[in-house]
Amino acid sequence: MKAQDIARMLDAEVVGDGNVEIFKTAKIEEARDGELTFLANPKYRKFVETTAASVILVSETFDVGNVRRTRPLTYIRVQDPYLSFFRILQTLTPPAEKLPKGVHRTAVIAKTASIGSNPSIGAHVVIGERCKIGANTRIHPGTVIGDDVEVGDEALFYANVTVRERCKVGGCVIVHSGTVIGSDGFGFAPRRDGTYEKIPQLGIVVIEDDVEIGANSSIDRATLGETRIKRGAKLDNLIQVAHNVVIGENTVIAAQTGISGSTKIGNNCVIGGQVGFVGHIEIADRVTIGAQSGISKSITKPGGTYFGYPAKELMKALRMYGALRQLPGVLENLRALEERILDLERELKETRSEVGSP
Amino acid sequence: MKAQDIARMLDAEVVGDGNVEIFKTAKIEEARDGELTFLANPKYRKFVETTAASVILVSETFDVGNVRRTRPLTYIRVQDPYLSFFRILQTLTPPAEKLPKGVHRTAVIAKTASIGSNPSIGAHVVIGERCKIGANTRIHPGTVIGDDVEVGDEALFYANVTVRERCKVGGCVIVHSGTVIGSDGFGFAPRRDGTYEKIPQLGIVVIEDDVEIGANSSIDRATLGETRIKRGAKLDNLIQVAHNVVIGENTVIAAQTGISGSTKIGNNCVIGGQVGFVGHIEIADRVTIGAQSGISKSITKPGGTYFGYPAKELMKALRMYGALRQLPGVLENLRALEERILDLERELKETRSEVGSP
Amino acid sequence: MKAQDIARMLDAEVVGDGNVEIFKTAKIEEARDGELTFLANPKYRKFVETTAASVILVSETFDVGNVRRTRPLTYIRVQDPYLSFFRILQTLTPPAEKLPKGVHRTAVIAKTASIGSNPSIGAHVVIGERCKIGANTRIHPGTVIGDDVEVGDEALFYANVTVRERCKVGGCVIVHSGTVIGSDGFGFAPRRDGTYEKIPQLGIVVIEDDVEIGANSSIDRATLGETRIKRGAKLDNLIQVAHNVVIGENTVIAAQTGISGSTKIGNNCVIGGQVGFVGHIEIADRVTIGAQSGISKSITKPGGTYFGYPAKELMKALRMYGALRQLPGVLENLRALEERILDLERELKETRSEVGSP
Repeated sequence: MKAQDIARMLDAEVVGDGNVEIFKTAKIEEARDGELTFLANPKYRKFVETTAASVILVSETFDVGNVRRTRPLTYIRVQDPYLSFFRILQTLTPPAEKLPKGVHRTAVIAKTASIGSNPSIGAHVVIGERCKIGANTRIHPGTVIGDDVEVGDEALFYANVTVRERCKVGGCVIVHSGTVIGSDGFGFAPRRDGTYEKIPQLGIVVIEDDVEIGANSSIDRATLGETRIKRGAKLDNLIQVAHNVVIGENTVIAAQTGISGSTKIGNNCVIGGQVGFVGHIEIADRVTIGAQSGISKSITKPGGTYFGYPAKELMKALRMYGALRQLPGVLENLRALEERILDLERELKETRSEVGSP
Repeated sequence: MKAQDIARMLDAEVVGDGNVEIFKTAKIEEARDGELTFLANPKYRKFVETTAASVILVSETFDVGNVRRTRPLTYIRVQDPYLSFFRILQTLTPPAEKLPKGVHRTAVIAKTASIGSNPSIGAHVVIGERCKIGANTRIHPGTVIGDDVEVGDEALFYANVTVRERCKVGGCVIVHSGTVIGSDGFGFAPRRDGTYEKIPQLGIVVIEDDVEIGANSSIDRATLGETRIKRGAKLDNLIQVAHNVVIGENTVIAAQTGISGSTKIGNNCVIGGQVGFVGHIEIADRVTIGAQSGISKSITKPGGTYFGYPAKELMKALRMYGALRQLPGVLENLRALEERILDLERELKETRSEVGSP
Repeated sequence: MKAQDIARMLDAEVVGDGNVEIFKTAKIEEARDGELTFLANPKYRKFVETTAASVILVSETFDVGNVRRTRPLTYIRVQDPYLSFFRILQTLTPPAEKLPKGVHRTAVIAKTASIGSNPSIGAHVVIGERCKIGANTRIHPGTVIGDDVEVGDEALFYANVTVRERCKVGGCVIVHSGTVIGSDGFGFAPRRDGTYEKIPQLGIVVIEDDVEIGANSSIDRATLGETRIKRGAKLDNLIQVAHNVVIGENTVIAAQTGISGSTKIGNNCVIGGQVGFVGHIEIADRVTIGAQSGISKSITKPGGTYFGYPAKELMKALRMYGALRQLPGVLENLRALEERILDLERELKETRSEVGSP
């Protein structure tokens, strides 16, 4: 592919020779002749002068005239060099997984299920009664889809996924291996004798379009109604989503976070790893939450950053943890102050007795 | 179903027209004509006057005479309206999962295994040599049961569960998808060269009757002897139970909690999510532990509530976290006090020099 | 097996009757005639005088002459009685899992895959195109291995494991059920409209020889290059290893710990359970980290012990948490000190006015 072809794909401007041929991609410090690289982090600016790459993606504000080089380099100016680099990478690289077209002979598909056009369904896949699976869906080996499940077009399920009965999965959704969608919510009513009665979990899970869910996560079905993960949300591995939770559009959640029952998380939030949310709270839009935080109350103000256990607004949390770090020193200091007060009291008493005060 | 049929099922008293027909169930604020609802939370008391439901479950102490309504409403008085509602719901609703009776043609069942009467065994299930599987057991697709496993009557395994060799699973146990029972405990002996030698994990896991285990949890087999989950315990998703752990009867554990090796948890405990227990400790009966707590010592007093990292009795923990919140302000205050002591010292010195003290 | 046979296997010295026959093993307090036991923990020293065992493994420094017993006991002196005990146990006990030799008729193995000699491949296993699987490999039912995967000799995969395309797994590696190797790293570039674009995860996972990975863990593939778990590392259950992470040789990590992207952990580290590491940091060799810690910065000093949230060197952390425990009392104390300062100020003012100071 020529530099000018890449620029055309990115709708971007070329500075230098547009006819240079590109065969591979590489990091700026490792790139060689015939390779495409990019500059996103200013820390790597110095490598622009020395890189052996043939073509580099730079930001639209990058000052090409200021670069001192002995060998030619072709620049492509784009809005976001990092993002553009990965787009090109995707074009140059074969797709990560390739599942043969068609339905594997060992797959067990209910006669009442309808499968869209052009499916790729792997070995030992099971698809239940009355399922409606969209077009161009890829389902890797060992995945089990229960009865009455609906799946949109272009969805991708990796191996050994489980989707329980009646759940709905949108178009272009990606579900990684080992993840379980639609397991029973955790609901039990205590009986007088200390045992528990299972509360039937009769609802479903709805995963909207463009959601991605990592490996070995669990998304529980609602007690009644729905657990819902909205359009464009991205969930990492080993995440717990309890019954009746709602996760907003384009919200990103890192690994091992757990969200308790009926909690609603807003749109465009960014949640760190190993965070815990109690149940029945609401988190506003565009909230950022630091890793390992514990969220025990609703956050009603959109756009804030929270951190800690229990979580506070970032500045308060940093002051609190800063103070905690000083605490052992403060306690010593306090003991010294107490000594000084004791001295003052003694000396003042002496003084007063000398002066003759009562 | 008529109101009086529902009342008979619940062994309860009807106030109003027992011949009203019920077709569906709904929340009190959304219920319509022909629907059954319930009042459990006093916050919803006001809806009793306006609900369009035909029948309502109320507690035995509810004062029916005090309700002002224009349209008729039939009351059924029960001990626990929430629990009774879910019992009726279960009767009115088809069961969540339906697995066809019999053994699917793709299931691989060892000839030496014995399967009880009336089984439902799904596609691609594997059952090992010499297994004894009880009557009316349901095993969903992709579940793998190792050699010499015993399973009681009425057990339910969802899809893609793994049970390793020799483990014992009681009657009426429910295991959700992706869960692993009987994986090796985590035991390694350090060699002098810094490498580790695996300590064979020769024990088993015993799951007693009426236990439920959520999705993607791991229950490790004992090094020697047993890891045991006692009758009626309920475990949520993504829980780690290490080798030789014992979990008491009717103990409830929320998602992502981890219990280290040889720790024993009492009966009727309630453990929050993301809690961590160190190994080799004992927790008394009826202990409640808040989410994200770290339990590093045995808790010998039954019935207490603990919270925090490291965990303390609830009141102490609340005081400690309250104090921590005040800490940045306290440090400022402390600096002011130090100034005042300095002033006092200077002024006292002046005074004493004026008075002529030494 | 005779005591002298055991001693020969362990290259150890017998004190007492070497012809005693051993049939079983047991803990020192429970052992009976004909059984082998061991003494490792000095707390159990007293049982050496009373145990009914026939043979006991003791350390080379144990003083046999000092034991008062009425019945005979044969001693075998070894470097590490605990480790030696488990070696013998392994010899006396049949291996935990037995998978029949050969390839099960329901396994689906690509024609282009090459399988080493003497394989054990269970029911419903799937092995992709061009895979190279070593000799004596055991793959339990339901495990799915993607295209172009390489696996060394003597590897053991339990049931329902997933290995994604192109990953490399070394010799003698053990992977427990439900674990996912090579799922996509969690990488998304924000678009201007608040949605995210998936960054393709084009790298692989490399698991070196002698690694063991517990149940339901997730090891993500690299964005570019490799995620690598080095020789002899041992990972417990439900662990998250993000893209481009490197875990050093012989490093041991307990359950539910999460390691964020590009973080590098040194050799021979010991990491507790439920620990979280931020991304892009480095941990030196031989570092120990306590359970539930949060590691937000690189640790450059080898051999230290760290603990807490945020984590500190052990002694600092203990002082900090000790101070935190005292905090509620300190705040009360502080209020008393403030009273005393107020008294001092008032009294000094009186004294000065009496003395006539300004």
